[in-house]
Amino acid sequence: MTGVRQLFVVAGIGNGSGTGAASARVFAKNGYSVAILARGADSLHKLEDEIKQSGGDVKAFSLEDYSYKSIGNAFQDIKSHWPSVPVRVALFNTGFTLWAPFLDITPEQVRESIDTNTVAGFAFAREAILQIKDQELNELGKRGTLIFTGATASLRGNTQTSAFSAGKHGLRALSQSLNKEFGKQNIHVAHAIIDGVILTDRNKDRRHDDPDWEKNEDRRLNPESIAQSYLYLANQDRSAWTWELDLRPSHEKW
Amino acid sequence: MTGVRQLFVVAGIGNGSGTGAASARVFAKNGYSVAILARGADSLHKLEDEIKQSGGDVKAFSLEDYSYKSIGNAFQDIKSHWPSVPVRVALFNTGFTLWAPFLDITPEQVRESIDTNTVAGFAFAREAILQIKDQELNELGKRGTLIFTGATASLRGNTQTSAFSAGKHGLRALSQSLNKEFGKQNIHVAHAIIDGVILTDRNKDRRHDDPDWEKNEDRRLNPESIAQSYLYLANQDRSAWTWELDLRPSHEKW
Amino acid sequence: MTGVRQLFVVAGIGNGSGTGAASARVFAKNGYSVAILARGADSLHKLEDEIKQSGGDVKAFSLEDYSYKSIGNAFQDIKSHWPSVPVRVALFNTGFTLWAPFLDITPEQVRESIDTNTVAGFAFAREAILQIKDQELNELGKRGTLIFTGATASLRGNTQTSAFSAGKHGLRALSQSLNKEFGKQNIHVAHAIIDGVILTDRNKDRRHDDPDWEKNEDRRLNPESIAQSYLYLANQDRSAWTWELDLRPSHEKW
Amino acid sequence: MTGVRQLFVVAGIGNGSGTGAASARVFAKNGYSVAILARGADSLHKLEDEIKQSGGDVKAFSLEDYSYKSIGNAFQDIKSHWPSVPVRVALFNTGFTLWAPFLDITPEQVRESIDTNTVAGFAFAREAILQIKDQELNELGKRGTLIFTGATASLRGNTQTSAFSAGKHGLRALSQSLNKEFGKQNIHVAHAIIDGVILTDRNKDRRHDDPDWEKNEDRRLNPESIAQSYLYLANQDRSAWTWELDLRPSHEKW
Repeated sequence: MTGVRQLFVVAGIGNGSGTGAASARVFAKNGYSVAILARGADSLHKLEDEIKQSGGDVKAFSLEDYSYKSIGNAFQDIKSHWPSVPVRVALFNTGFTLWAPFLDITPEQVRESIDTNTVAGFAFAREAILQIKDQELNELGKRGTLIFTGATASLRGNTQTSAFSAGKHGLRALSQSLNKEFGKQNIHVAHAIIDGVILTDRNKDRRHDDPDWEKNEDRRLNPESIAQSYLYLANQDRSAWTWELDLRPSHEKW
Repeated sequence: MTGVRQLFVVAGIGNGSGTGAASARVFAKNGYSVAILARGADSLHKLEDEIKQSGGDVKAFSLEDYSYKSIGNAFQDIKSHWPSVPVRVALFNTGFTLWAPFLDITPEQVRESIDTNTVAGFAFAREAILQIKDQELNELGKRGTLIFTGATASLRGNTQTSAFSAGKHGLRALSQSLNKEFGKQNIHVAHAIIDGVILTDRNKDRRHDDPDWEKNEDRRLNPESIAQSYLYLANQDRSAWTWELDLRPSHEKW
Repeated sequence: MTGVRQLFVVAGIGNGSGTGAASARVFAKNGYSVAILARGADSLHKLEDEIKQSGGDVKAFSLEDYSYKSIGNAFQDIKSHWPSVPVRVALFNTGFTLWAPFLDITPEQVRESIDTNTVAGFAFAREAILQIKDQELNELGKRGTLIFTGATASLRGNTQTSAFSAGKHGLRALSQSLNKEFGKQNIHVAHAIIDGVILTDRNKDRRHDDPDWEKNEDRRLNPESIAQSYLYLANQDRSAWTWELDLRPSHEKW
Repeated sequence: MTGVRQLFVVAGIGNGSGTGAASARVFAKNGYSVAILARGADSLHKLEDEIKQSGGDVKAFSLEDYSYKSIGNAFQDIKSHWPSVPVRVALFNTGFTLWAPFLDITPEQVRESIDTNTVAGFAFAREAILQIKDQELNELGKRGTLIFTGATASLRGNTQTSAFSAGKHGLRALSQSLNKEFGKQNIHVAHAIIDGVILTDRNKDRRHDDPDWEKNEDRRLNPESIAQSYLYLANQDRSAWTWELDLRPSHEKW
């Protein structure tokens, strides 16, 4: 970082304790201005306040939904707020998770999984690439980096995951297509397979009768560690960059 | 086949010269009653007439679209037409193909690809499984077989295929989830990767300046050969069945 | 089959109750002359006798080992025995299975796994392709078919399978290379992933305290069913052939 | 790095201009003592001298071959030279590359590819894990990291790569098995797919009529960039570590 400001845009921060929020913190600490996009204003503004108080340049953008229109509007607002700060890194971290037997899944749930996991990824990627493609090459020989958060379900359909894995497979295909198409324009597109359970507040609650889980770093992923891997991806130079990596805890059975 | 009638249902027959139509013919010849579902009534009724004249027991069901509702209605009509013939094999052969640079693809095209390639597969699978799961085990130890037609794009995103491969990846994930979930109920779910260009009327037209292509069986897939492989899948017994196979012409570069 | 004799060559028949032996029986019944190659003469000659008594044209070739030299000699003997019967189908069914923690595996076991699972496959493929490549195209547009028996370990390394999966991965890579190189010469190379436990005498013995296993066709693979899938592969025509398929019992967890 | 010395062991440095040598330099600069193992003493000692002159703590170990015995001896010599410096990172970077039509490949070349690409990996992994498994957990919660250099051929067999890809597939299977088995002991095993041509002296020579290739960082991998990715892998903590990542130049067609 050479004093030139640059922008990190992240969509999907859940309740502020997971990968999206950790990435916002990590990129802010590393000198990026940070735009955080999510549905649900509460966690969003709490995270905005927190990063501000740590001295970060941050702004929250609340979305009604992850439609093309809402995402397009958010990117316009980002542009208005930081007219001269280029988007250099964009993270699509949104997801809709569903474990259910196939015959119990409603058409609406199939729709929501596909829309949130795949279609929203297309909308976000479009806006991010439109911003990044006109940037100058940075010192790494890149115009910017677009990262997608994947899951075990990106690689495998399983009982109970038909709708979820369909959505995540679609997103992975998108990321691979984009890597191949936009690599030639020096835009780096990457996909991370998160193969394990992340230490979020929600996951802690679900496991409150297994206190070892929270404490034992061998068993779950630290969101900060995932965020560090995203920073690493953003810092890879054009001669040797990664489309896909997997991330899992050391003791994960896989 | 022991004289007991059983039903083959296929969705997606294009203009009647491709995989769906060939499968209808092959299963009809092998003694199945055949229900053909598609949008667009012309090709559908032409195929119906043709199979009837060959002595097949066939009925066409024209769909407005591939929504849950239209597919659900079609399966009800099938049930009304053949109240005592069990669905034993169902083939989802519908697809929406699109080659275009990512930034040229409209939100509507993304939607159409996902809807036709993935969501319609969920709707078709739901109806097929609801029919098959209550059948008796046949002599192969199966209640029935559900087959999905995949493509190269089911395995790889490529430049120009972001929307197409996202939709096809989603369908593949669905098929794998269903195989794992419903295998335990002796329902066989399979997925075929068609890795090459199929000899259809439309593909012939596109290559009319390369007459060798049509004649040279080393270069393109015969729809009848694909259909034979679907018949083979339907005939696999429960002790050794296939989730996925690839099919390509002998001289295909891959 | 048009009355013209053709040869099926299989290497690896274990104790005569598994995939290799079942394939010998199935191809013999379907009119092929059958050459069976294996180490250990007892099972080999028992199988030879059995097929002979069923009216098959069969000869056993006992190998000292699976070296290039031994396999080369066996193919010469095959040529001498059937000077005018062309090799049309060859099956490499040999394997060395080992489940052990990595640090318990000796250098000799690594060597044996690699030699038997991979290097022997190179030697067998060489001889088979040298025979097949000069045959006329048959009615399917093929010179012949070369099939490799793979396993779950062909796709995944796992705890306890380091040496086994390394050998099986190597064989799979070979089969894919050969498919791509010799497809252009109309030689069909295929690879079957056997993802489950096969009903052999040895596996029966190991599970004698679980009598359901032997009887329950949902839980284990019939060797005859695998053999039927190999016959199907041999019968695919050049316009739509398969490199890889998986085979597993309906209730297998995967 | 907290002042405690730790050891980086690398096998395979070619002529000193590639990945292995770059990794030795990068880890030396980052405070590791460095043991370099290779056949051929010239490049080895040149690299040793160079790192020494940069202030690195380095020693070269010349191997006759990559047999279990030679590798075992080298690790004993390493232990003698640094009796109290723990091995923390080990890199298996050896490889035997061969592009040739299948029928032109000799049994000796198959053997050499398998031995160098796979069996030597088993021998190296054994010695590395025996060293690492008794170390204390470091500040990242790891006993150490074992990295394997893979290639495009690790994922795909292709025409001309039967022997090479068989060897590389075997190594990948080994790395996955080890990741699953030794993750539970907090040993991190990783595999990097190098999908492109590396900027080495040898590759420069081969492309001397295409001067853009050497200069254009979009077209080939910098060995230093690969080495940085290995350092990143070594620095991942136990809560979120990577088994496999791919590395390729931005303009690579894949």
